Amino acid sequence: MLGKFIISHKPCLHPPLSFYQQLRIFADQEFRMQFKILHKDTQSNARAGEIITDHSRIQTPIFMPVGTQGTVKAVHQRELKEDIDAPVILGNTYHLYLRPGLDVLEEAGGLHKFMKWDRSILTDSGGYQVFSLSENRKLSPEGAHFRSHIDGSKHLFTPEGVVDIQRTIGADIMMAFDECTPWPCDKAYAESSLELTHQWLDRGWKHFKESEPKYGYSQSFFPIVQGSVYQDLRERSAEKIASIAAEGNAIGGLSVGEPAEDMYAMIEVVNRILPEDRPRYLMGVGTPINILEAISLGVDMFDCVMPTRNGRNGMLFTAEGIINIRNRKWMNDFSPVDEMGHSFVDTQYSKAYLRHLIIAGELLGAQIATLHNLAFYIWLVREAFYQIKKGEFTPWKIKMVKSLGTRL
Amino acid sequence: MLGKFIISHKPCLHPPLSFYQQLRIFADQEFRMQFKILHKDTQSNARAGEIITDHSRIQTPIFMPVGTQGTVKAVHQRELKEDIDAPVILGNTYHLYLRPGLDVLEEAGGLHKFMKWDRSILTDSGGYQVFSLSENRKLSPEGAHFRSHIDGSKHLFTPEGVVDIQRTIGADIMMAFDECTPWPCDKAYAESSLELTHQWLDRGWKHFKESEPKYGYSQSFFPIVQGSVYQDLRERSAEKIASIAAEGNAIGGLSVGEPAEDMYAMIEVVNRILPEDRPRYLMGVGTPINILEAISLGVDMFDCVMPTRNGRNGMLFTAEGIINIRNRKWMNDFSPVDEMGHSFVDTQYSKAYLRHLIIAGELLGAQIATLHNLAFYIWLVREAFYQIKKGEFTPWKIKMVKSLGTRL
Repeated sequence: MLGKFIISHKPCLHPPLSFYQQLRIFADQEFRMQFKILHKDTQSNARAGEIITDHSRIQTPIFMPVGTQGTVKAVHQRELKEDIDAPVILGNTYHLYLRPGLDVLEEAGGLHKFMKWDRSILTDSGGYQVFSLSENRKLSPEGAHFRSHIDGSKHLFTPEGVVDIQRTIGADIMMAFDECTPWPCDKAYAESSLELTHQWLDRGWKHFKESEPKYGYSQSFFPIVQGSVYQDLRERSAEKIASIAAEGNAIGGLSVGEPAEDMYAMIEVVNRILPEDRPRYLMGVGTPINILEAISLGVDMFDCVMPTRNGRNGMLFTAEGIINIRNRKWMNDFSPVDEMGHSFVDTQYSKAYLRHLIIAGELLGAQIATLHNLAFYIWLVREAFYQIKKGEFTPWKIKMVKSLGTRL
Repeated sequence: MLGKFIISHKPCLHPPLSFYQQLRIFADQEFRMQFKILHKDTQSNARAGEIITDHSRIQTPIFMPVGTQGTVKAVHQRELKEDIDAPVILGNTYHLYLRPGLDVLEEAGGLHKFMKWDRSILTDSGGYQVFSLSENRKLSPEGAHFRSHIDGSKHLFTPEGVVDIQRTIGADIMMAFDECTPWPCDKAYAESSLELTHQWLDRGWKHFKESEPKYGYSQSFFPIVQGSVYQDLRERSAEKIASIAAEGNAIGGLSVGEPAEDMYAMIEVVNRILPEDRPRYLMGVGTPINILEAISLGVDMFDCVMPTRNGRNGMLFTAEGIINIRNRKWMNDFSPVDEMGHSFVDTQYSKAYLRHLIIAGELLGAQIATLHNLAFYIWLVREAFYQIKKGEFTPWKIKMVKSLGTRL
């Protein structure tokens, strides 16, 4: 069994529940996120599996497009489903809490209904944004006091409060409140920060178990491993996180500026300890190469702003390498954006046209580049699944890593 | 017959030509834009008709979405076709000439191929932008010297040059180079400007007749009536423009700040003189009410940045009136953006969600509002067509004008 507690579903004010949801309520049976490993690579720790939430079936490895404020920037929900085919997206607790705010989200019946997205949502706990975006933040054992980056208003995030916020947002997967240490980070700070993160975890986990979903579907809670680039701290943290026996586990505090080799080393250390039969989520990572390397180390879930943010600036990721579409060399290149691409934009529009749009600051440029990059990231992890299934992941990964880093 | 000259189509370097295009080349037969009036209103001068270009059939009255730089801001070409169903869009000579530039457009095989838009395109002559956007502009009988608003580089637009540029862009409908007088404008200036515009027209028209399309499909050339708000000047200009016997005629220099009553009065004066059997295009107009009033005065074609630009700022046009979605009253309104709306965004998203996106500065807010507004404008002119056909245009217009102006 995947855990210890039963969420008893009560009928709620937000109809309609699906037939299966009603059945579960009726039977008061245990239901929660499911995770199955379907295939394992023999030459690495890569695994291909599937997560099932109440909203969608998620083939892993998976990349989750970032939808910070209840929208994946420049992408319609229809395109996310039909063109990109993302089974899960990420929302951000810090941003959604500040705007549109919990009253609006609760009245809407949760974020899914508010943004009309009927597949899964994972929410970041907001810890990262409190430290990177907000003003006058002050950490204490109680939690984090901060001022809104929008209007300067004062707020307090606690481990319990952040669970409540995510209950109101209604994410399928909620994250524990943690401190994401910067890089570089001296060991004493990393250690004391880790202790705080672990204390917060205990409080958040307790509150999670004592609270219930609001909208008639189940919610999971993932704790987060920290420990900067220190092997012993990472090991200590991974053991703590594993002891929680949550439905999935996350690795945070990486890809914050440290060398890629340090990141891979920490993932390896941590994944030796995190339970094999639960999904592992590497937060905020990364380049296509980072993702393939982490998959080979046994990571299942990823999110990153890179395909969306860099896309808006004209950087395109392709199987052949990276295109800076602002480059003059594309000015007269009327070939498709990516003839091997997986979204309608790839063959409909030319490089020369996309370059023109990006140079001219046109919104359609951002829309095209974002659609392309997200479709590429989703293709990449889906292809990783099939390569693992075929038993050819490792040679495929080695070949891909070479071409993915090429500057076209 | 609609005109005096024959465009002899030569096979060109940009295949494939359609069967009908090849047939025309083979037969060396006269072909050009066609215009038919199908229905006339009995209580006003409104007419319902159809324009046929080599690229599309355009039911009139028609509103043309503005695609200044080779893109209708925030809208995919696929959405323009499938969701908005616009049969013709507008491009801007000034902007396209500066960026991406004529070399790129010619190498692409024209703007249609560059932006992958296979329906009709009308290009503004650039006169308006030279006066409103460029720096250090200097008018002379020869043309307009100006500096690019992008990089300060020096350029000269002449009536002949602007025809050549539009040949290279490949617009189905090209516009004469004119001076669009500001408002207010003293009569002496308006009169001398008008003389210059008429001289430029003769030169542009001559050059148009002596030049040929570049991409195997026909191009029309519309002259523009000017004369500010002075009835005698407008009459003189309309007579001059009518004497050209072009395939369509435009009314410029209105909706530049003058009272709506002055605008309607000028349209009435001009339309008494412009030939009935040619389409009449009112440039840069306007609100939904302006459009209905101008239709009743016998105008067939419109363009305006209002649905796109105001949409991006959160102003929505609906049959019930105008919504400022930034208003606090929509914060908790989970009803559809426009339950009577004609695009998928109207029923997919709620007002509260759209408000959140616009307030948060999210690109998807601009995308949704633009799609809504353009679909509404296209619905409005299409509905005008059917009301004219049914013989009920005038009472319908009176009723609509009341509700369209309401602030919701």
